[in-house]
Amino acid sequence: MRSRAAALPDRILTARRAAEIQPFEVMEILARAHELEALGRRVVHMEIGEPDFTAPAPVVEAGVRALREGLTAYTSTLGLPALREAIAQHYRQRFGAEVPVSRIAVTAGASGALLLALALFVDSDDELLVPDPGYPGYRHFVRAFEGVARPIATRAEASFQPTLDLVEQAWGARTIGVLLGSPANPSGTLIPENELRRIAEFVAERGGVLIVDEIYQGLVYGRKPSTAYDLPGNVVLVNSFSKYFCMTGWRLGWAVLPQEHVRAFEKLAQHLFICPPSAAQHAALAAFSPQSTEILEGRRREFERRRDFLVPALERAGLRIPARPNGAFYIYADCSAVEADARRFALGLLDAEAVAATPGLDFGANETRHFMRFAYTRSMEDLEEGARRIARYCGARA
Amino acid sequence: MRSRAAALPDRILTARRAAEIQPFEVMEILARAHELEALGRRVVHMEIGEPDFTAPAPVVEAGVRALREGLTAYTSTLGLPALREAIAQHYRQRFGAEVPVSRIAVTAGASGALLLALALFVDSDDELLVPDPGYPGYRHFVRAFEGVARPIATRAEASFQPTLDLVEQAWGARTIGVLLGSPANPSGTLIPENELRRIAEFVAERGGVLIVDEIYQGLVYGRKPSTAYDLPGNVVLVNSFSKYFCMTGWRLGWAVLPQEHVRAFEKLAQHLFICPPSAAQHAALAAFSPQSTEILEGRRREFERRRDFLVPALERAGLRIPARPNGAFYIYADCSAVEADARRFALGLLDAEAVAATPGLDFGANETRHFMRFAYTRSMEDLEEGARRIARYCGARA
Repeated sequence: MRSRAAALPDRILTARRAAEIQPFEVMEILARAHELEALGRRVVHMEIGEPDFTAPAPVVEAGVRALREGLTAYTSTLGLPALREAIAQHYRQRFGAEVPVSRIAVTAGASGALLLALALFVDSDDELLVPDPGYPGYRHFVRAFEGVARPIATRAEASFQPTLDLVEQAWGARTIGVLLGSPANPSGTLIPENELRRIAEFVAERGGVLIVDEIYQGLVYGRKPSTAYDLPGNVVLVNSFSKYFCMTGWRLGWAVLPQEHVRAFEKLAQHLFICPPSAAQHAALAAFSPQSTEILEGRRREFERRRDFLVPALERAGLRIPARPNGAFYIYADCSAVEADARRFALGLLDAEAVAATPGLDFGANETRHFMRFAYTRSMEDLEEGARRIARYCGARA
Repeated sequence: MRSRAAALPDRILTARRAAEIQPFEVMEILARAHELEALGRRVVHMEIGEPDFTAPAPVVEAGVRALREGLTAYTSTLGLPALREAIAQHYRQRFGAEVPVSRIAVTAGASGALLLALALFVDSDDELLVPDPGYPGYRHFVRAFEGVARPIATRAEASFQPTLDLVEQAWGARTIGVLLGSPANPSGTLIPENELRRIAEFVAERGGVLIVDEIYQGLVYGRKPSTAYDLPGNVVLVNSFSKYFCMTGWRLGWAVLPQEHVRAFEKLAQHLFICPPSAAQHAALAAFSPQSTEILEGRRREFERRRDFLVPALERAGLRIPARPNGAFYIYADCSAVEADARRFALGLLDAEAVAATPGLDFGANETRHFMRFAYTRSMEDLEEGARRIARYCGARA
């Protein structure tokens, strides 16, 4: 333990969490990509976890109306009542789920929902089980509130998702719950519904909390979208307007909370956020309209076409995709037949062929060193060009 | 200490911080005010810490253009380079301060800036000195990251601001710094520049951090606005587009950080926020234009007129204002000549005269029980009506 008293006057120490929270590996890739672009090279971007589509026109126009009408004051901390209603109706129409409006909290992105959920449940030294590989934010949110994110080493055979066995093995005296994503980042896989239910029952028996990150909900292929809403126990759902609804920079998401914890969540949100962005909330009211849904479903089909193209293209290039992605917009591929070290693979691919992709290390420590994440968040034309370049790069090294 | 293991299966415990973070007292006032309004009564709102003006027209139109042009993707975590430049230029033009762009971080409101600054500096059990009375968020942000907010009991004679003496007395073995606001909420007072410099020197000698919340910067009356930018030591400035710039619901603010801590702040922001709202950033580029400044300075003069009306009006009604407010849009008034208990005063005033105002308890424990905060964030006509009602209420109880 360091001592603050020992700090030199001209050099203050930051909190330990600041040292322990790592930057994204992909930032190095991004910086190099920008250097190459500055030199005039055309970089194919397959590193970006953001749709290449902007918000549907009805959402944009609702946002414009809100700005012009001055609907830009603070809103209720839990969000506009009308938006909470619209989200409840979305669950009803799309998933047949009856979610009481009172349990829905609009937040500043899924990030805001995760931050508040972990502030609500994680005490110092509490352990939360998180998937490895998984979204890096999970462990950092837990660490931010002085908890311990205990990784569950998932396996390709189980779709890189936690299983009841793995949860049972990892559950310890200080474990308070499980956090998982479905569809998941980086693997694009979904957790089987029966496995998720078994995990929920196990967590519920222990009085724990199950946080299910459904940020990629709606972006599923070859199956109907689903929600973990009706699981037993204390279940928190995290969601967002960023991915399916293509509203990343609007910073809007939501959580569905156990009724008994809504009030405490609201208190935390009052102080830590005041409220989610106002005009974005008014705009999001238009995100569930038939017109928006038609646009968004068209985009979902486009993502599906891209996946259907890119998975076999990467495999033909010599990469191995051990768990077929059925959601989100990521492909998680083993590059070890080409290059044992994914970071070297990523830097080499970028320098030789100007294709940017994300090394697996960003997502944890469980065999991530020889995995790469490819995002299909660019046009089919870009992806075709990217695939040609990847094939050439892998071919040259085979 | 509670034990998680002892939790009953059907009842999980939330983190201790959730129990310790209190809701705003004013929420009870607000709820009653809404009840009265539902019954048809015209409530005069003097409880609201939000300008009654919306963003200047050039800001709104810049926001509309950003939405229509699809400038709604994630931005850099620290904000649009152009906005960071614009903020640096604002410091140069308005305050003659040369703030390097590299030290400016755009955030999701001042709330985002405070959250990240405290995540960056506050370890478990670290103590941060905060003014009492003061913005309640201060202590809750510190508590959120497992730190201890140690109140400094300020005195009316020192404008309800910390003094070097008080800081020296409060500084202990685990103290890592001081957080204060100027202009302050709830008092509307400014800390004298020489006192602030002495505090900064003391903190710097101890290797601590000084966080100065300048969220009401620009809203000062009878003097030029100032910044604590050039103080010695590790100084973090917190600022916002919410108050002077009248952009509350846009959720946009900024921090000025010691250069050596920018990178760690950025890492935390990457994971906890991703980026501030995009369209709001594009809109804010227009907030410093001569046209916006003319509008905003007109509003500042309007706030000044309101203050000049309301301070003597409250005094005539029998309230005591022991420290003259020179900034923000609040008046902090001792109601003990009328009613020893401010909460009772607030509820009585609301029921009898339909005037909503905030009991001092929201702002701490230092003699706050007989203080009220009145906000002048409504039109002069409303304030005149409010003052008449307050005078009648106080007169009836004298």
